Amino acid sequence: MSHTIKIFSPATVANVACGFDILGFALEAPGDIISVSITDKSGLSIRNEIKGMNMPLDPDKNTTTVAIQAYLEYLTVNALTYASAELSSMLSGKKGVEVVFHEKIKPGSGVGSSSASAAAGVFGLNELFGKPLNKLELVQFAMQGERAACGSAHADNVAPAILGGFVLVRSYTPLDIVTIPYPDDLCVAIIHPQIEVRTEDARKVLRKEIKLKDAIQQWGNIAGLIAGLMKGDYALIGRSLQDVIIEPIRSMLIPGYDEVKLAAMEAGALGCSISGSGPSMFALCQDRATAEKVSKVLAKTFDEMGIESHVYVSGINAEGVRVA
Amino acid sequence: MSHTIKIFSPATVANVACGFDILGFALEAPGDIISVSITDKSGLSIRNEIKGMNMPLDPDKNTTTVAIQAYLEYLTVNALTYASAELSSMLSGKKGVEVVFHEKIKPGSGVGSSSASAAAGVFGLNELFGKPLNKLELVQFAMQGERAACGSAHADNVAPAILGGFVLVRSYTPLDIVTIPYPDDLCVAIIHPQIEVRTEDARKVLRKEIKLKDAIQQWGNIAGLIAGLMKGDYALIGRSLQDVIIEPIRSMLIPGYDEVKLAAMEAGALGCSISGSGPSMFALCQDRATAEKVSKVLAKTFDEMGIESHVYVSGINAEGVRVA
Repeated sequence: MSHTIKIFSPATVANVACGFDILGFALEAPGDIISVSITDKSGLSIRNEIKGMNMPLDPDKNTTTVAIQAYLEYLTVNALTYASAELSSMLSGKKGVEVVFHEKIKPGSGVGSSSASAAAGVFGLNELFGKPLNKLELVQFAMQGERAACGSAHADNVAPAILGGFVLVRSYTPLDIVTIPYPDDLCVAIIHPQIEVRTEDARKVLRKEIKLKDAIQQWGNIAGLIAGLMKGDYALIGRSLQDVIIEPIRSMLIPGYDEVKLAAMEAGALGCSISGSGPSMFALCQDRATAEKVSKVLAKTFDEMGIESHVYVSGINAEGVRVA
Repeated sequence: MSHTIKIFSPATVANVACGFDILGFALEAPGDIISVSITDKSGLSIRNEIKGMNMPLDPDKNTTTVAIQAYLEYLTVNALTYASAELSSMLSGKKGVEVVFHEKIKPGSGVGSSSASAAAGVFGLNELFGKPLNKLELVQFAMQGERAACGSAHADNVAPAILGGFVLVRSYTPLDIVTIPYPDDLCVAIIHPQIEVRTEDARKVLRKEIKLKDAIQQWGNIAGLIAGLMKGDYALIGRSLQDVIIEPIRSMLIPGYDEVKLAAMEAGALGCSISGSGPSMFALCQDRATAEKVSKVLAKTFDEMGIESHVYVSGINAEGVRVA
């Protein structure tokens, strides 16, 4: 006997210009589609059904199973509170978990591929267990998957992947996750130039010390962005989508960055910056029509520079990870 | 013939823990009470009716008249738009402006004394002129008064003094002022220990470079504070009222700072930090009853250390500078 659940887990845009390490939002698409099963075989196992995509099949190295392990450890330590027959049979080695990958966001694109997988794993198993934990509580385990993927347990992708919408990570110690209301019409154009930027490398180029005057500008902008989102003030959102600290450094890793950004702004985007650690770029727009227009301009600009790219348009995903 | 208007201009709390240089709020009391008159004598003149308080009587050095000068210069340059008989007679030397100080927030206390005076001056004259400019437009001139007072034209006191409530200065170049909704019940206890901290000195002790990881914490907190204020989420406001950059340095200028802050928190304050550049400290509270309780504890703690202090409680002033 086994039972199985199929999960959709969305791509996410982290940093959002002025919110480095603390802000992200979820996309309607693309996303991971992953099945999670409780099986009669003990331990964790992974099956990859996606042609042409490699991934670690060692449960200690795959973000999904690392996150699931962290989740299971928590339930075990708190077994008095979360006792269940299924957990017991899993701990005694009578049952196990199998994860099957059906569709996967391309890794290294900068839209939270590893986060989506980690979120899918813990959300799926938590559903199979009868939801002993709520979505907010799942964030900490998905973060452990992130750590396996990129060496640091940041939450600005996993939190929106799980909760949907715009999510603020106010603090990491203790973890403090805040959902931010936003206008429904907001839409985003994403472009993924076919170049490689590794998250670890994108972190290494950053300076450990920054100018106080730059930091002041940055916290003015993040404060303005939060106010703009909550007020539904598109002009304020646009004025606030500026990053004077990270973008000037990381954008050097993306050829043609300035031209593409300028083209997005001229086509009507509220703002344009690097998605996560790149190389994808996002252009936030007031509505879908603008985002469609911007997406064409983005693709054209990279195309004219001879850089192959993949472009798409998405609304903001209000729900986050869900049963598919 | 002369005509006169009497103005009340409120004290303000700038920085608000995590919003260094970008956030402030206005108090119901104390405030400046200043009369502004259009007189038959050319130029600007100042009369001080407050016993025991000295202030510069040179119009080039008094924040109120410096702000008024900036306002008049703007109207002059834009005279085609703002033409009026009164402005013309002032420019031709037939009329002038007299400012009379009736009540004044104690300078150097850290609750925006110079800002209140600057705001009162430009607001008063703008009223007498029939409101050619709106309140938002007046902020830039009051900032010039600030520059005269402390050497830098910051806006996180003058903007809330003029507009009331919580005000975000998202950007200085260009100036971008954003009002932030907040819960009505919010109340604040302020304590002014009788020690001197000059704004210029408080600026000098700051480091020009800060750690990126500290800046990330700070922008997480300012984002959380804005979200907390707009959601009316008192717990989030409380968790966000943390300053990991400025307070650790500036608090050393205030003897007993840590004890007083701890006492405020134990008495139920949402957060407690330095008001502006100090030495006043503010403790934001969920309601007036808590603020009253906190104020007593603040006073007691300084008293036990042998430091004389002046303590008061105020709601948030939603209106800002107004006709008295």
